[in-house]
Amino acid sequence: MRPLILVTNDDGINAKGVHCLIDRLIPFGDIVTVCPDAPRSGQSMAITVNDPLKLTELPDYKGAKMYKVSGTPVDCVKLAMHHILPRKADLVVAGINHGSNSGVNVLYSGTMGAAMEGCAFEIPSIGFSLTSHDPDADFTPCYAAIDTLVKGVLEHGLPKDICLNVNIPADAGIPEEMRVCTGCRGKWNDEYKEYLDPYGHKFYWLTGTFENLEPDNHDTDEWCLSHGIISVVPIDIERTATITRDTEWLREITKKPLG
Amino acid sequence: MRPLILVTNDDGINAKGVHCLIDRLIPFGDIVTVCPDAPRSGQSMAITVNDPLKLTELPDYKGAKMYKVSGTPVDCVKLAMHHILPRKADLVVAGINHGSNSGVNVLYSGTMGAAMEGCAFEIPSIGFSLTSHDPDADFTPCYAAIDTLVKGVLEHGLPKDICLNVNIPADAGIPEEMRVCTGCRGKWNDEYKEYLDPYGHKFYWLTGTFENLEPDNHDTDEWCLSHGIISVVPIDIERTATITRDTEWLREITKKPLG
Repeated sequence: MRPLILVTNDDGINAKGVHCLIDRLIPFGDIVTVCPDAPRSGQSMAITVNDPLKLTELPDYKGAKMYKVSGTPVDCVKLAMHHILPRKADLVVAGINHGSNSGVNVLYSGTMGAAMEGCAFEIPSIGFSLTSHDPDADFTPCYAAIDTLVKGVLEHGLPKDICLNVNIPADAGIPEEMRVCTGCRGKWNDEYKEYLDPYGHKFYWLTGTFENLEPDNHDTDEWCLSHGIISVVPIDIERTATITRDTEWLREITKKPLG
Repeated sequence: MRPLILVTNDDGINAKGVHCLIDRLIPFGDIVTVCPDAPRSGQSMAITVNDPLKLTELPDYKGAKMYKVSGTPVDCVKLAMHHILPRKADLVVAGINHGSNSGVNVLYSGTMGAAMEGCAFEIPSIGFSLTSHDPDADFTPCYAAIDTLVKGVLEHGLPKDICLNVNIPADAGIPEEMRVCTGCRGKWNDEYKEYLDPYGHKFYWLTGTFENLEPDNHDTDEWCLSHGIISVVPIDIERTATITRDTEWLREITKKPLG
């Protein structure tokens, strides 16, 4: 039986990136695509709890089944798992995102939210992102990495709780190198542009510049991307931290009677 | 100088839970509250990127500054940090959530999204949740834990990348015990109710029952909560996983030439 591959994204069903991804995945298995009906960037692992979801089947694309959902990327994965796929998928692939999801962006990314949701279903999952926001970006720099990683993950699987965050540099021609590395420490500065509405009230729009807090660390995704190298970061969805000497006080105070 | 405490939630500025939280935090410091203008449950770490945000100052509540934002819990924390707070907060407290955020729910929770965002700003951060969705729930079971943990965190701080996910059982009277434990492994089953619209098209609403995958493990938050014990789970926001023997193949394939 050919592998069943669930494809999703956060740029919406009409994005070029998801079509390029499907093009590349066709040789690997049977594809079902379930994407948001409109761009849903920055949705992290958000789910729609207080509203219903509309699910619409669309014409096939090169043999791939196509659906759109009036929700978030995680809604797409959940709805696919419970109401669309004929069986549990063998692989979840999200992207190709229009824009980088390196470093701290993994926390907010809808693309990686979908990959983490696939991982929560215990399915090997990968998110691919190209470091260009251009709606008509050239995705060919991604192709060799997609081929190699999808083949590798279908063959070897991924450990429980681990998915992959793959970023591809857009401005370095066809990358010749791929490296397993860590998500870069960094933060966003000056994050909001301030405006005045016609009635004199302030409003705000998210913007800002990214500050790399470890520019000399060659082991980060940011370093790789700025040197024309594809970054592969294994992402852990387990959230519980280990108690260390720094948090031993927590155990101590919880041993005392409350109140 | 008194500690500066940023309070937020995901149930919105009018929720009873956040007012009970403020009541309890007043003795500990100066409070600035920045909440979504309406309920935003299940928003995880979602951010608003394609729309502007409205920020509205409201009348003070018992001396606490009060603001509402037309966005997600993470938007509230970011906007507070960049445009509202007079200086970096000493503590971020999210909640008290109306409903449990134990186990896998931490992935989707807006309350914990806000706490994780505070943590990303390197501020000690705590999310409190009561296991009752009742809008008029009795939050007194939470008070001793809030006092103890806020005092402890202000005194000891928390390690970089670690915040706390605190859940309080609603149906066990005033809990006498609090325990540091792990987030329970579990999953949601039968997640969507199916409907037909007036034109015969299907639509879906998220629902489902939670399945505890390790019911006999006494070290989990679910076990604590079902035994009348308050759970305190340290949450790690660092996402990069360690390469183990199971993922060594990844390093191997990335050493080969691409394409």
